[in-house]
Amino acid sequence: MKTDIDKIMQDRELDVLLVLGDAEHNSPMYYLTGGGHVNAATLIKPRGKDATLFHNDMEREEAAKTGLKTVSYSKYPLKELRKEADGDMLKIGAIRLQKMLTDCGVTSGRVGVYGHTDLSASFSMLMAAQKLMPDVEFVGESGMDSVFLQAMETKTEDEIARIREMGRITTEVVGQVKDFLTGHAVGDDEVLLKADGKPLTISDVKAKINLWLAERGAENPESTIFSIGRDAGFPHSVGTPSDPICLGKTIIFDIFPCEAGGGYFYDFTRTWCLGYAPEAEQKLYDEVREVYETIIEKMEVGMLFGDVQKLTCELFEAQGHASPLNTDAPLEGYVHSVGHGLGVNVHERPWARMEQKDGLLQPGVVFTIEPGLYYPERGMGVRIENTYWAREDGTFERLAEFDFGLVLEMKS
Amino acid sequence: MKTDIDKIMQDRELDVLLVLGDAEHNSPMYYLTGGGHVNAATLIKPRGKDATLFHNDMEREEAAKTGLKTVSYSKYPLKELRKEADGDMLKIGAIRLQKMLTDCGVTSGRVGVYGHTDLSASFSMLMAAQKLMPDVEFVGESGMDSVFLQAMETKTEDEIARIREMGRITTEVVGQVKDFLTGHAVGDDEVLLKADGKPLTISDVKAKINLWLAERGAENPESTIFSIGRDAGFPHSVGTPSDPICLGKTIIFDIFPCEAGGGYFYDFTRTWCLGYAPEAEQKLYDEVREVYETIIEKMEVGMLFGDVQKLTCELFEAQGHASPLNTDAPLEGYVHSVGHGLGVNVHERPWARMEQKDGLLQPGVVFTIEPGLYYPERGMGVRIENTYWAREDGTFERLAEFDFGLVLEMKS
Repeated sequence: MKTDIDKIMQDRELDVLLVLGDAEHNSPMYYLTGGGHVNAATLIKPRGKDATLFHNDMEREEAAKTGLKTVSYSKYPLKELRKEADGDMLKIGAIRLQKMLTDCGVTSGRVGVYGHTDLSASFSMLMAAQKLMPDVEFVGESGMDSVFLQAMETKTEDEIARIREMGRITTEVVGQVKDFLTGHAVGDDEVLLKADGKPLTISDVKAKINLWLAERGAENPESTIFSIGRDAGFPHSVGTPSDPICLGKTIIFDIFPCEAGGGYFYDFTRTWCLGYAPEAEQKLYDEVREVYETIIEKMEVGMLFGDVQKLTCELFEAQGHASPLNTDAPLEGYVHSVGHGLGVNVHERPWARMEQKDGLLQPGVVFTIEPGLYYPERGMGVRIENTYWAREDGTFERLAEFDFGLVLEMKS
Repeated sequence: MKTDIDKIMQDRELDVLLVLGDAEHNSPMYYLTGGGHVNAATLIKPRGKDATLFHNDMEREEAAKTGLKTVSYSKYPLKELRKEADGDMLKIGAIRLQKMLTDCGVTSGRVGVYGHTDLSASFSMLMAAQKLMPDVEFVGESGMDSVFLQAMETKTEDEIARIREMGRITTEVVGQVKDFLTGHAVGDDEVLLKADGKPLTISDVKAKINLWLAERGAENPESTIFSIGRDAGFPHSVGTPSDPICLGKTIIFDIFPCEAGGGYFYDFTRTWCLGYAPEAEQKLYDEVREVYETIIEKMEVGMLFGDVQKLTCELFEAQGHASPLNTDAPLEGYVHSVGHGLGVNVHERPWARMEQKDGLLQPGVVFTIEPGLYYPERGMGVRIENTYWAREDGTFERLAEFDFGLVLEMKS
């Protein structure tokens, strides 16, 4: 939780957090500011002290809404900076950064750098600032594990409420998509037809998904996976826009929208066959479903997420499928991990990695469970995914409900 | 243009471009790949050679759609990397980067780093890779001027067509917003009322904007400015969501959507007064409009964008307003620059900076003209913005048309 940040900084021997970039669609900045239209900002948080947000003058009203201490960049006039930098554009940012750090009492120590932002400009500025401030050491952290990812790993009730609300919105939209698909007429080759007689395509469905999310004030920054047949056999294929929707093929519908401005996400997947499921598709689905139910039955609050992954591999291998347990990077069978944490990032700690020993499903953690099987050369793939919250009382709560069924009966 | 990249690299003494991050919402990666659901990719482009895109195995089908040479990260098995790195997580990425660079023939030289991506992870990886590869120098470039921003500055006919199409979508949505607003009933205090008798708020209007953009397949990643009264006096205030919409106050509506997936943008602003305009608001509008028309009349293909800014300052100062020409960072009057380039970034080269000598409105450049006046303490602000293309034939083309009027007559 956010209140753990100072302690986590201490554990990691970090004296200062330096976050760069916009407040929106930039998870560490969003986490500390709460979002808003504050662009190209600089946030400095020394350990044990409050954060200061430096911002463009034009955005002073937006910056003030964050409730943080704010300072306008105009405190450091460009004309003076330019003089000090001898006109060297790359150095101007470094000199200003040095001034901002100094004004926050930072002249030495380890400074962790963060932000989903422009790497080129940030890298050049940090390299130049490093030369100006020899007693400071700028350091990065792994994309899998940082102060922020560790703090974000456990959620407050407020954060849970926001994720649950996104779950409600997400499953409502999934329900609309279901109604939309099954309300279509079916033409030759079992292809769904629009009112104008043309085939309904993945592109048509995605347009509706974006529309229905927008109607509910949600955003879709990482797009949606809606893939059919062979494409469904590739876990991260988003689907070919021009592909027609037809009966009897597996459709993987994986939807992961967030609050407007890049806030909290939800993550949800169903696999559908429209009209009917051929025997092979039904069998693949039944296998995934069986593994899914066994995982849910066996997982316990406090266990290692990596052990859930190991269990999933064992269950799929017992069914005769390849898995990462005994195959390096398998291309068929069970090819990914069983889930991931989620919050202001669609993927965050805890990770379900067998080799990892600190991904605990401890109270406060929100995570997905999403076993799947993929056979692109057989033209099919199946994944089932829900998002869970590990509660203080030692139980898991599924944060949104939706029917699991594979076959969607057509209405006409 | 993209075909200029090798020459620009040479001018800047860069031997290699290294682009990190997702293909979407990451302009340098988008520019070279054309987008798609390819996450956490690595693109390496040595000068004078083709680029190679390294990607996650699960996204091989999406990567293949880019048409680039692709290599899966599974070529560098994690187990071996872990062994080589002695389990040091930060070093794993650096070792893999070294292998990828080596496989692209890069073992020395200046490597420019780019990408809108996770700064912390990239910075730590680059610092570790720097130690492994002493003959390579990783360098960043300014956010105002890089190989990419220079190449992007001039557009091909294809790019123009995509921006023009976004202009069509944008102005269609603006028209819908106009119809929506003027169709409302007006209650006490000149506040617009919804069908349920409650005040129409900025939040309601923004929900419609997002909806109508989504219906047309456009995205709104940088949100929308729709601010009224005092908020309109702050150029980058996005508006207070709960503010009611009422008659007779300036509304600044600045909309800058892009193609789905983070492609080409459009940028457009109108200032409206619903029902009527008080004298002071009308006067402010007339002054901005007069300056706007003078700029359009005087600007010529090939001139310095900074000179257009200087002209704008002079025109506003002649009207009695403060401007950056003779006031440092003014808070009232004309407080920003007259425009900016746009393309796969909403703000890109050329810049309209008086001190800058290389921002030419040369053929192929797409840019905004957006003079404005801001008086937050008087409860008003005015901005007018259109997007232009400098053509080979020496003329400018406005890429979308929309009525300039300040007052929107209410329908009832």
